Amino acid sequence: MITKKQSQLIKSLHLKKYRKKEQLFFVEGTKSVLELLESDYETRTVYATPLFLQDNAKELEKANVELVSVPADILAGLGTFKTNDSALAVAEMKPNQPLEATAGEYALLLDDVNDPGNLGTIIRIADWYGIKKLICSENTVDFYSPKVVAAAKGSFTRVRAYYTNLPGFLAGNRLPVYGADLEGADVHHFSFSGGGYLLMGNEANGIHPDLYPFISKKIRIPAYGGAESLNVAIATAIICDNLRRGEEYSA
Amino acid sequence: MITKKQSQLIKSLHLKKYRKKEQLFFVEGTKSVLELLESDYETRTVYATPLFLQDNAKELEKANVELVSVPADILAGLGTFKTNDSALAVAEMKPNQPLEATAGEYALLLDDVNDPGNLGTIIRIADWYGIKKLICSENTVDFYSPKVVAAAKGSFTRVRAYYTNLPGFLAGNRLPVYGADLEGADVHHFSFSGGGYLLMGNEANGIHPDLYPFISKKIRIPAYGGAESLNVAIATAIICDNLRRGEEYSA
Repeated sequence: MITKKQSQLIKSLHLKKYRKKEQLFFVEGTKSVLELLESDYETRTVYATPLFLQDNAKELEKANVELVSVPADILAGLGTFKTNDSALAVAEMKPNQPLEATAGEYALLLDDVNDPGNLGTIIRIADWYGIKKLICSENTVDFYSPKVVAAAKGSFTRVRAYYTNLPGFLAGNRLPVYGADLEGADVHHFSFSGGGYLLMGNEANGIHPDLYPFISKKIRIPAYGGAESLNVAIATAIICDNLRRGEEYSA
Repeated sequence: MITKKQSQLIKSLHLKKYRKKEQLFFVEGTKSVLELLESDYETRTVYATPLFLQDNAKELEKANVELVSVPADILAGLGTFKTNDSALAVAEMKPNQPLEATAGEYALLLDDVNDPGNLGTIIRIADWYGIKKLICSENTVDFYSPKVVAAAKGSFTRVRAYYTNLPGFLAGNRLPVYGADLEGADVHHFSFSGGGYLLMGNEANGIHPDLYPFISKKIRIPAYGGAESLNVAIATAIICDNLRRGEEYSA
């Protein structure tokens, strides 16, 4: 049975302030919890329905974590899901350690991506395209926000984020920085090579002007219809797809 | 001033049942309302703050619609936005008229896309890539749902939807149908040509098995990392980008 203290802890982890204080976050749903257990994250406790505990007994035993049996209605009340008939796990956050792209590697630079659904989707896209590092501005939504983790599906276990001051970070960078711009080079006719950073801007305001001087190549996604813009996660996906495609063809 | 009857009408339009009965829907926010006024939709009434009415006097006069001045807090209470300091417009739905791709044209087939945010994003993507027709299964979320319209930004004015029984629709079709499948041809090495349909499936269950026999070409988005799948809107965007890119290179 779940104790009042455990329940209060989980509820506090909805807020960034308490996640930071406790250095803990939570993960909901079958697939994400199972991917968490297989990852290099330290899982503290799995709260789960008796059926989940039974169905995943092997994985849970291997993971060697505290297990708490909780009915589905209580489980849904703890997290952000409307219904949760499987599990919720509490795990340790990774420390905010410096990351950078190595030679030949691509990483994403996120300049104030605000919407948790967008960041979660970007994490999933990065994972699909084999991009393992996100360098995030300090105002980018928290990687460990429950909605980010939910939207990332299991991909949050394979992609790391480093929150930092972007102008400071870029001042010390020597790799190419690709920034989306309406007057940039058409990504359908542009060859990416040698690694670097893809810089993606805020949903409403795009890239901050103080980052413009750091953009070494401007690129744009060609339009064929009437829409004026694309969502930041959609744009990230299309640029990543063109990047990997270009690498294949130039290889 | 807004009347009680007007306010009740707008609130009823949150539900599909009443949208269908009244054949009306509503649109929120500056950009979407202005694009609505410029489109071939019949707008009945614009509810707006005094500032919006003043700033957009020219466009509103040209559109020749009923104007109702409403304070921002009342406006937000009528629609789905948390805050709305601009406008909300009530307009006539388009009738559910048959649509099909003409020779050389591409259209989307949506098989039970459930999430309003996904459908809205797909509408925006279709508009970006010059795709004007969506053929939707009867269980696909309603095109005129406020959340769909909001996520589509102004693009709902340039893309049309036709809701129908997909197996019945496809039984009479002679154009190619491209369906996403893990064992399909890699879109990076596949040439689209001559038009046809892109078939996109449900968020959780993919494409219904009863539609498999109608797929003439299976295609897949190549993966480079650990994610098992992509969101349906992301997949739509990447396939559309490869399609248009392929057309350019083969032209």
